[in-house]
Amino acid sequence: MRLSELSARSGVPTATIKFYLREKLLPPGERVSATQAAYGQEHLRRLRLVRALIQVGRMPVATAREVLAAVDDEGMDQHTRLGVATWALPGPAPLRGGERDEESHEAARRDVAALLDRLGWHECEPGTTPAYDTLVEAVAALVRLGYPCDIPHLARYAHAAAEAAETDLDLLESQENATEQVEAGVALTVLYEPVLLSLRRLAQAEESARRFGSGS
Amino acid sequence: MRLSELSARSGVPTATIKFYLREKLLPPGERVSATQAAYGQEHLRRLRLVRALIQVGRMPVATAREVLAAVDDEGMDQHTRLGVATWALPGPAPLRGGERDEESHEAARRDVAALLDRLGWHECEPGTTPAYDTLVEAVAALVRLGYPCDIPHLARYAHAAAEAAETDLDLLESQENATEQVEAGVALTVLYEPVLLSLRRLAQAEESARRFGSGS
Repeated sequence: MRLSELSARSGVPTATIKFYLREKLLPPGERVSATQAAYGQEHLRRLRLVRALIQVGRMPVATAREVLAAVDDEGMDQHTRLGVATWALPGPAPLRGGERDEESHEAARRDVAALLDRLGWHECEPGTTPAYDTLVEAVAALVRLGYPCDIPHLARYAHAAAEAAETDLDLLESQENATEQVEAGVALTVLYEPVLLSLRRLAQAEESARRFGSGS
Repeated sequence: MRLSELSARSGVPTATIKFYLREKLLPPGERVSATQAAYGQEHLRRLRLVRALIQVGRMPVATAREVLAAVDDEGMDQHTRLGVATWALPGPAPLRGGERDEESHEAARRDVAALLDRLGWHECEPGTTPAYDTLVEAVAALVRLGYPCDIPHLARYAHAAAEAAETDLDLLESQENATEQVEAGVALTVLYEPVLLSLRRLAQAEESARRFGSGS
């Protein structure tokens, strides 16, 4: 299809598509004449991922390019490729510490290591993924402010997170081939974050009604 | 205790405490002379909550004041008070739509209503909470981009979210009295969001290793 059709079918303005092409977020089309190129299904699919990352997930262009490079690297086994592509995603917005102190961070690092050990999660090492560091920061904020945050409770949150992750991987495996799976893995990681957080808020209201409600 | 001791024990600079007092985020101390006031445990506790909301949760001062007003309103039963206080929290950062269209929103509204009906969650009505609207927006983005998002899968995310919410309420109930519970409910809702999202990322890596790993 031509650029105009790619625009019509994706709903993305041609100027935006040209910007994505210039920024190498989208591979070039196949040249059919000096002034025209043809685009295929893979462009339509890639455009969808770029929109998920940039328009919806608010990712900077340079970060998106890094994520897409990992998505396109077919020289790795599927687990590594998925890992590299989602590792390249920025972590969930980290908490801001105010006065970040070494003591609460040290305690948080120990707690997180003990938690992962208890869970038998051995894929993740400190410093290898933004998510690990975000987790340590978040636990450090809880420790510093003196809010409850012991390992048994953290393990229950981890159990809930594991259930979400299983659903993520099921959705991903419903995609046709390895590349589409990696693309979906990246997009769904970003797109389902607000789904999960808003469902938690709604579930809190249900649970509160159950425990404190007047039964009316 | 005096302002200087409140500052030393909370780790918050006196200038910041004075700002919070001026902005009515912290109730005034008890006047003990023309130039001095005395502060108590409730100030220390409230200061912790204010830091959780503003410093860590990045909440605007005006929003924090609104949340705290709900926290302080003892004229409501506990379920309503918790509801009003956490309802006043801003929803999880909403996804940005690009070209927000009526069609995908209509489909998302129907899906969310069907989901909540299937779950038997009857506490939440459209338009009553930022979380409900965020959920509709997030589902609309998935629909618009054509990523999988059917009700059975959404129900699995809801199940995971419900497990997190149960843990939230258990933590909250471990607090001593009704006011401390509402304070903790608000703080923990905000502080555990990055915990949950980073644990999901780590759990994805574990699940991916299980499904795609070489078994090494």
